[in-house]
Amino acid sequence: MATITRVDDPADPRVDDFRDLTTADRRPDRPGGRGLVIAEGVVVVRRMIDSPYPVRSLLGVPRRFDELADDLAGLPVPAYAADAETMAAVVGFHLNRGVLAVADRAVPPDVTALLRHARLVAVLEGVNDHENLGALFRNAAALGVDAVLLGPRCSDPLYRRSVRVSMGHVLRVPFAELPGPWPSSLEVLRAAGLRVAALTPAADARPLSTVAPDQRIAVLLGAEGPGLTADALAAADLRVRIPMAPGVDSLNVATAAAVAFHALGAAGRP
Amino acid sequence: MATITRVDDPADPRVDDFRDLTTADRRPDRPGGRGLVIAEGVVVVRRMIDSPYPVRSLLGVPRRFDELADDLAGLPVPAYAADAETMAAVVGFHLNRGVLAVADRAVPPDVTALLRHARLVAVLEGVNDHENLGALFRNAAALGVDAVLLGPRCSDPLYRRSVRVSMGHVLRVPFAELPGPWPSSLEVLRAAGLRVAALTPAADARPLSTVAPDQRIAVLLGAEGPGLTADALAAADLRVRIPMAPGVDSLNVATAAAVAFHALGAAGRP
Repeated sequence: MATITRVDDPADPRVDDFRDLTTADRRPDRPGGRGLVIAEGVVVVRRMIDSPYPVRSLLGVPRRFDELADDLAGLPVPAYAADAETMAAVVGFHLNRGVLAVADRAVPPDVTALLRHARLVAVLEGVNDHENLGALFRNAAALGVDAVLLGPRCSDPLYRRSVRVSMGHVLRVPFAELPGPWPSSLEVLRAAGLRVAALTPAADARPLSTVAPDQRIAVLLGAEGPGLTADALAAADLRVRIPMAPGVDSLNVATAAAVAFHALGAAGRP
Repeated sequence: MATITRVDDPADPRVDDFRDLTTADRRPDRPGGRGLVIAEGVVVVRRMIDSPYPVRSLLGVPRRFDELADDLAGLPVPAYAADAETMAAVVGFHLNRGVLAVADRAVPPDVTALLRHARLVAVLEGVNDHENLGALFRNAAALGVDAVLLGPRCSDPLYRRSVRVSMGHVLRVPFAELPGPWPSSLEVLRAAGLRVAALTPAADARPLSTVAPDQRIAVLLGAEGPGLTADALAAADLRVRIPMAPGVDSLNVATAAAVAFHALGAAGRP
């Protein structure tokens, strides 16, 4: 059972993990950064508690702790109750979701183990917008993606805004950095029996709906503007496209990913 | 050719259409509101110029007008050039996109005419979040939706934020309010030869991928939280779902719409 402790002094060192979140956000990955994972709001806090990430503590208004009573029952960490003003003074802005949890990072899963039974995988190159990355994880969770692999130049999925936009699903969908030189590192996917399908707007790529639906498949996705690099496209087993109306540049990367996950995953099979 | 006129006084009445946009946004549809349509940024301004909406004038920094030179060549409306500070003083905030255009609303298309040759239509009930609505129009444009019909309790697609999030596609995809009492007003779709497919997470709805792909179809979509009302669901010809992983509540409504547009439209047909 989480111990609920009242905190009235914003300078209380017990809530240092939650201090000045906006400033902490600016360099979450840099040496010296804490690298802690922050969950905001009842829904996301609940997903963090259910995740492999080891929760360190919570900070919230009493009403939110009431809502989370069942979730806190089995959780041996401190929960600090404060009023909204004290919370705002700690985190550095007014937080309308009323509850936060903080966790340590977990050891990333082993890529080979992750791929052994995976049927639908997302591989990202240069997806460096935190909101797009969060939305992509939300879509991955909904549409049955078994793992997300991060190629070069991707943002940190555990950045606070990504966690929030993902609705906490970034804490549920296993992910790991793809080790080794890019894009030859994609070989590990083929070794695991997955085909690598690069999503591209190129007119000569195959429409998604023509790809045989009984594959174990990895969807290779690039950033919204530039898309995949030529090297990444060349390293894929096939190139697929979402047929698009003339004059429309592209879909948002997370939206395009959702269309591809649905069409290529189990969900899209009649 | 648009006449480019220098404006140095933020109080200049010639730029009144652009004044205090945030305040104007608060009640864009109310009697007494201007109901003008605002486009922000080169890409969206360009789409407005190419749209049926009659452009009244532009306001921007000179560099953006240089970028738009070809688009302005055939446009007989005033373009007001100002420095960034003057623009900020007019619109009420600092605008990093550097150019705005304003248009009058256009006469909405006739629903029966709109549906006559439409193959893929979206019908919305209660989609009242401006960002979701904008994103939905962007996806509709990309995925070949011929028309969007607005049922009850939808936001105004021409609200400034919707226009921006849609990347200006709300100015390209024809839309109209569905006239008559809801949901019997859906009859006009059947009269036009379209089947009405309600998208719902209900477990007993048909997976999208099992719907015969040679239909002319209207996708009926509800708001992200509550979904479609029971009345709307009952009025549909069939109920379809996106198969989803256990424990995931839902997709964003614009994302779900994109998956459905792809699966049910021409794009999803092998």
